[in-house]
Amino acid sequence: MATVRIWSDAEAEADAHVKAVFDDIRATRKTDFVNNVWRALANQPAVLESTWAQVKQVMTRPGALDPVTREMIYMAVSIANGCEYCVHSHTAGARAKGMTDEMLGELLAIVGLAAQTNALVTALQVPVDPEFKA
Amino acid sequence: MATVRIWSDAEAEADAHVKAVFDDIRATRKTDFVNNVWRALANQPAVLESTWAQVKQVMTRPGALDPVTREMIYMAVSIANGCEYCVHSHTAGARAKGMTDEMLGELLAIVGLAAQTNALVTALQVPVDPEFKA
Amino acid sequence: MATVRIWSDAEAEADAHVKAVFDDIRATRKTDFVNNVWRALANQPAVLESTWAQVKQVMTRPGALDPVTREMIYMAVSIANGCEYCVHSHTAGARAKGMTDEMLGELLAIVGLAAQTNALVTALQVPVDPEFKA
Amino acid sequence: MATVRIWSDAEAEADAHVKAVFDDIRATRKTDFVNNVWRALANQPAVLESTWAQVKQVMTRPGALDPVTREMIYMAVSIANGCEYCVHSHTAGARAKGMTDEMLGELLAIVGLAAQTNALVTALQVPVDPEFKA
Amino acid sequence: MATVRIWSDAEAEADAHVKAVFDDIRATRKTDFVNNVWRALANQPAVLESTWAQVKQVMTRPGALDPVTREMIYMAVSIANGCEYCVHSHTAGARAKGMTDEMLGELLAIVGLAAQTNALVTALQVPVDPEFKA
Amino acid sequence: MATVRIWSDAEAEADAHVKAVFDDIRATRKTDFVNNVWRALANQPAVLESTWAQVKQVMTRPGALDPVTREMIYMAVSIANGCEYCVHSHTAGARAKGMTDEMLGELLAIVGLAAQTNALVTALQVPVDPEFKA
Repeated sequence: MATVRIWSDAEAEADAHVKAVFDDIRATRKTDFVNNVWRALANQPAVLESTWAQVKQVMTRPGALDPVTREMIYMAVSIANGCEYCVHSHTAGARAKGMTDEMLGELLAIVGLAAQTNALVTALQVPVDPEFKA
Repeated sequence: MATVRIWSDAEAEADAHVKAVFDDIRATRKTDFVNNVWRALANQPAVLESTWAQVKQVMTRPGALDPVTREMIYMAVSIANGCEYCVHSHTAGARAKGMTDEMLGELLAIVGLAAQTNALVTALQVPVDPEFKA
Repeated sequence: MATVRIWSDAEAEADAHVKAVFDDIRATRKTDFVNNVWRALANQPAVLESTWAQVKQVMTRPGALDPVTREMIYMAVSIANGCEYCVHSHTAGARAKGMTDEMLGELLAIVGLAAQTNALVTALQVPVDPEFKA
Repeated sequence: MATVRIWSDAEAEADAHVKAVFDDIRATRKTDFVNNVWRALANQPAVLESTWAQVKQVMTRPGALDPVTREMIYMAVSIANGCEYCVHSHTAGARAKGMTDEMLGELLAIVGLAAQTNALVTALQVPVDPEFKA
Repeated sequence: MATVRIWSDAEAEADAHVKAVFDDIRATRKTDFVNNVWRALANQPAVLESTWAQVKQVMTRPGALDPVTREMIYMAVSIANGCEYCVHSHTAGARAKGMTDEMLGELLAIVGLAAQTNALVTALQVPVDPEFKA
Repeated sequence: MATVRIWSDAEAEADAHVKAVFDDIRATRKTDFVNNVWRALANQPAVLESTWAQVKQVMTRPGALDPVTREMIYMAVSIANGCEYCVHSHTAGARAKGMTDEMLGELLAIVGLAAQTNALVTALQVPVDPEFKA
């Protein structure tokens, strides 16, 4: 259950600020599906607008990283932060953009290994090698 | 400062188990440089062997993800976990495998955005959309 | 589902240690409602007593911070730690003590921004400015 | 040590994008001091601009929360996320905006208590009370 | 809900790699019960095999720490990392290996206290005493 | 560097509240060494007193868990939370109470494995088995 109201399409249609964001999400993603994070953020239109503007900019603008790599990095952070919703939405997003089972298997192996070595390094308080200096 | 001794090359040469791992690190990576995490783990040969075996398997074996993508995912987890040493070693690793400044800029934007939306989703306790179900 | 039994009012009434804490919670908060965290901690009376003593001291004693500010700081930590129950209970608590929708919107913006900049700073390993020294 | 170059004032002056942001930071904060996070982000002008735009909007625009409360919430998140630089910069920021020793003492008590009860609640997997539903 | 399919016994029987791991889990633990984490990992046989090999090695091989102490340390990490499934599985595991209510109460007190003092130390950025150097 | 002043013995002697706590630390631990966390907390006498009272109660009172097990659980949480100072102080504490190199090696293996499986379980969102219900 959410701590705020999850907006229906009818409620979003009746609010000009929210409608504008939902319309842009649908146009950008070429789908009628607007997932719950936007319906929850609709309670705070300024946060909704700012968050969508960033997601649109960071995740859809052409650049050096392809879409599936971007989603896999997003997944990795969401897993490390333990965010259930985010793991689901970005796993679905990565699959929609081409993540195969083989790629998922390698992602899982890296994320698990990184968690393990992060813990070992923290436990031993390993000093940074001078060779790593920028 | 570390909580354990950081092994010198001379100390590693004198221990058969540790020497074997250090030799394999050097042969696999085609460099004489053995970074401090291995010199710290040398105090616990069983953990050293098991950790290196996994790193070698997960990070160097051919697969669906290229080496720079693997290092960038490792970086993303290390940042999310707040591991100083790991951020340094995997940023250096990603650069050595071809991460450009443009790619780093996009990685930073994704990692920052993911941290932000992870926090917002957790704050609002957004329910998982049924559309995301496997 | 909990890993321990959630105590009913009848069970709490039958245990002198638990009854004393529940009575004090009700008297202090001027409500008959005792939420589940106390019903779970009831399995460990020493932890129950110590935890309630701290919550009562820290959250209800007069001081420099007003009650709604205290709850909003508690919310911020609970969000950062990803504790679902705690997010719910302290969002409800902050609302009961006067948090408006506008205040919640600003809290969300700060918590999201802090998560983002925390990640960027960790990614870049920014050195502490000497000007910040105590 | 940082993973990127920390820009000097001379370097920032020579780059139009970076200079514009540094000028706005100085004008907005009414001080010549530009702290290291901006000098590190200068390597990625797009991330620098986007991050400063958000910090300016969220932390300096008039609203329901006063400046010291905003900084204390930022501090609480930074502590929970274990970000050394951020703890320093936002503790200094909160003090500059009026946080007294008494307020700091109460903040510490809340942040410590929240960390403790977050852990207990997670350990016991306490179910959310229906009374907390939005 | 999982992001992947949870394998039934019939599905596991039909895959030689998965069947071999499930058979070894049952033989090692002397029970027919194979819990869901293995049924989820079955989608990625390489990760399944590697993870089970480590769990078997670390948790069941004779050593300096007895089985219940190992499970309590596993619980402590799982609580700190906020992993719901892991808290449940390792609480059940610790109980099966002899954790009493008194031991659980002491574990809870330590885990809560550690979370609190970790937060306080981070808030104050306490410098490491030279006496702690290895 | 700390965000607050680290009190010297002379400063502590001059403050009745702080002196009383430092005296009790020395008497309880049978050593003249008072480590920095207490010297930092001295700036906030109420937090100092409350924190020491809990540490004394949880870590030194006789119970079901022996002193070295208590310190190892404290270490595990401190590692998972990424608290540098805490990792150092509780590693030193565990060694002082009898943790051998063999025990440390097993602790490291468990903490690393737990971090890894916590991440995998979170990535796959494994549903809790009904068999684990309390």
